[in-house]
Amino acid sequence: MNIVEGGIVAPKGFKAAGKFVGLKKKRKDLSIVLSEVPCDFAATFTTNKVKAAPVVWNENIYKNYDKIRALVVNSGNANACTGQKGYEDTVLTAQTMASYIHTMEQEVLVASTGVIGVSLPVEKIVKGIGELFPLVDDDIVSGINAAEGIMTTDTNIKMISIKINIGGKDVHIGGMAKGSGMIHPNMATMLSFITTDVAIDKELLRDTLKEITNDTYNMISVDGDTSTNDMVIAMANGMAENTLISSRNEDYKTFYEGFLYVNKYLAQEIVRDGEGASKFIEVTANGAKSKKDAVLIVKSILTSNLVKTALFGEDANWGRVLCAAGYSGGDFDPEQATLSFESNNEKIILLEKGLPVLFDEEKAFHILQNRDIKIVLELDQGDHSATGWGCDLSYEYVKINGEYRT
Amino acid sequence: MNIVEGGIVAPKGFKAAGKFVGLKKKRKDLSIVLSEVPCDFAATFTTNKVKAAPVVWNENIYKNYDKIRALVVNSGNANACTGQKGYEDTVLTAQTMASYIHTMEQEVLVASTGVIGVSLPVEKIVKGIGELFPLVDDDIVSGINAAEGIMTTDTNIKMISIKINIGGKDVHIGGMAKGSGMIHPNMATMLSFITTDVAIDKELLRDTLKEITNDTYNMISVDGDTSTNDMVIAMANGMAENTLISSRNEDYKTFYEGFLYVNKYLAQEIVRDGEGASKFIEVTANGAKSKKDAVLIVKSILTSNLVKTALFGEDANWGRVLCAAGYSGGDFDPEQATLSFESNNEKIILLEKGLPVLFDEEKAFHILQNRDIKIVLELDQGDHSATGWGCDLSYEYVKINGEYRT
Repeated sequence: MNIVEGGIVAPKGFKAAGKFVGLKKKRKDLSIVLSEVPCDFAATFTTNKVKAAPVVWNENIYKNYDKIRALVVNSGNANACTGQKGYEDTVLTAQTMASYIHTMEQEVLVASTGVIGVSLPVEKIVKGIGELFPLVDDDIVSGINAAEGIMTTDTNIKMISIKINIGGKDVHIGGMAKGSGMIHPNMATMLSFITTDVAIDKELLRDTLKEITNDTYNMISVDGDTSTNDMVIAMANGMAENTLISSRNEDYKTFYEGFLYVNKYLAQEIVRDGEGASKFIEVTANGAKSKKDAVLIVKSILTSNLVKTALFGEDANWGRVLCAAGYSGGDFDPEQATLSFESNNEKIILLEKGLPVLFDEEKAFHILQNRDIKIVLELDQGDHSATGWGCDLSYEYVKINGEYRT
Repeated sequence: MNIVEGGIVAPKGFKAAGKFVGLKKKRKDLSIVLSEVPCDFAATFTTNKVKAAPVVWNENIYKNYDKIRALVVNSGNANACTGQKGYEDTVLTAQTMASYIHTMEQEVLVASTGVIGVSLPVEKIVKGIGELFPLVDDDIVSGINAAEGIMTTDTNIKMISIKINIGGKDVHIGGMAKGSGMIHPNMATMLSFITTDVAIDKELLRDTLKEITNDTYNMISVDGDTSTNDMVIAMANGMAENTLISSRNEDYKTFYEGFLYVNKYLAQEIVRDGEGASKFIEVTANGAKSKKDAVLIVKSILTSNLVKTALFGEDANWGRVLCAAGYSGGDFDPEQATLSFESNNEKIILLEKGLPVLFDEEKAFHILQNRDIKIVLELDQGDHSATGWGCDLSYEYVKINGEYRT
């Protein structure tokens, strides 16, 4: 597996563009991604009862149609809680894009992100698509522009692309994503778009995306809020000309490994750039009675405001970690639990078999001063594990979210 | 019903004291509450798997013994995650108190609050009980001292007492409580101690406390964390000499009303003094299909960091409220939802039957500048309602919890 340049335009036959069309103050706010040929696609959508108009549009296509050609994403406005007009705006967006590439509107997926409950200025998007369409290209700059166009409070672009070899053919997987608030482990939890030129059976691609979503996007948390607009979309156009992957064979394993790598990278990038984040936290629970117990415990630790503020303060207040595990709903015996903090190959044990360890506070502080910190809880109750990723809770988070809309 | 002075010493036969014994830096850190005669008692305890030693001690007494005489509460150390030694420290605390009042150790309940995972300096408590015992009194200052001795990051004491008339007899109910972090709706969610001289059947008192806990302490949230030490204890010594209340008759209704008042007051005081709180938020969901749906929706809104930071920023970002309702797990149809913000008899509707209302931003800002804010969500799906209380998320919360232990 090699890292290559280009992001979503790295796979054969994909082109993209992104530019400012007036939805935000000045940063790029509209992106399009096109495939030369119709693509199979997989997707996961928000579980929030309140679904943005584009989520409703895409879910219908996911259920009832086979192939797509394009994706239009705007930032600066979520088109959520906008009623029938909002839905019509999404349809008009899809129709506009479809007209440029001479296809059905149902071959265009739409995504929106930004403020909720404000009517979408769809005329700017319609005009913007006209301006963007001549710009689509498969050069690196176009991939970067597209990744910029989907950002909201993100402080940097999130994109990656890799090349793998399947049966002698070069296969590419590219991706771009955006965070960085309303991020919580519950189905797809942000916007993430994956392109690949692999040839793979559609149902297998869909099953694989679901599985991978559970281990990546569903295991990250910035603030515990699950957005109205979240989605992950993977488009596969088959242009790598590998033998079609239709079972979980060796070729599939190679693809799976690359696909997991790209999705995990993007999920982690979202957390690294979590609103106000100054720490990247990896939490692992080992030795749980079941996967479910492990997942509950990991998520509870990742989302505890008390754990998050302690990490922000670089304070080895491990009692809060155990407390969050205790109210997680995951089954374990606290008297068997062993807890450690790790960073840069340094490790400190804070609790061993339920009893506090007299630890070196200076060493603990030294570990916690790093940006990347691992928290490992050994439960000694069984064979199941889970790992998730989160960030600390800082003054900056409060500042960003106390001032976001105004 | 009249508000009277004294807090937990207002009811006949209750005395208390509180003083500094060296567990904290300088603020009072040990309190005792005594009843002249053996009391019936009711209690609710944390649901956290990680239970502090005093919780284990009290739960055993709750299950196996009938009457208690005293309560010893220390702040500055939670005696949680402290193993067998921690449990022995709790037993020694109870034994020491019991020796002064010539009773069994099983007639003494114990509570601890403070940092987790640090061995309790029990010798200071043993010595402290000896110093405190001569000070116990039923004057107002003693009630205040006891309420001070249980505080951790609280910025003010939380106490109340009322007088009601039951069958011609004066009956008193007093209470004290402490917050103010790790507060979340899930069973008893902080320390709260109630005294009353009412004569009431023990089982009826226990059932009543459970019911009232669900509508008061279980409906407040400061930060979503459920502590290892939470408990509510109500002691009833019967010294008011009213006819024993043994059924849900008129006398019971009078008592219930007063008991609810005291517990709701203390629950709300905990939220008002939530760590870093600059706002007191009441959230009501009306018209839900079931009580459970209403409760899920209210709690989800109260605990959303995005809602809490928006309120801190006095930003009418109502989309976050609807979003939090949407991922709550409570069933409702967003297209039937109507949402309003209220304060000081001013009201502004932000969403009506699923559609955003073009509202006066200045009026909204005016409402949100108040300290007490009500959020009302009308679901129009059925007849069930729930109300809960919470606070905003401020820089101060992050500061307090980033620096707490060190």
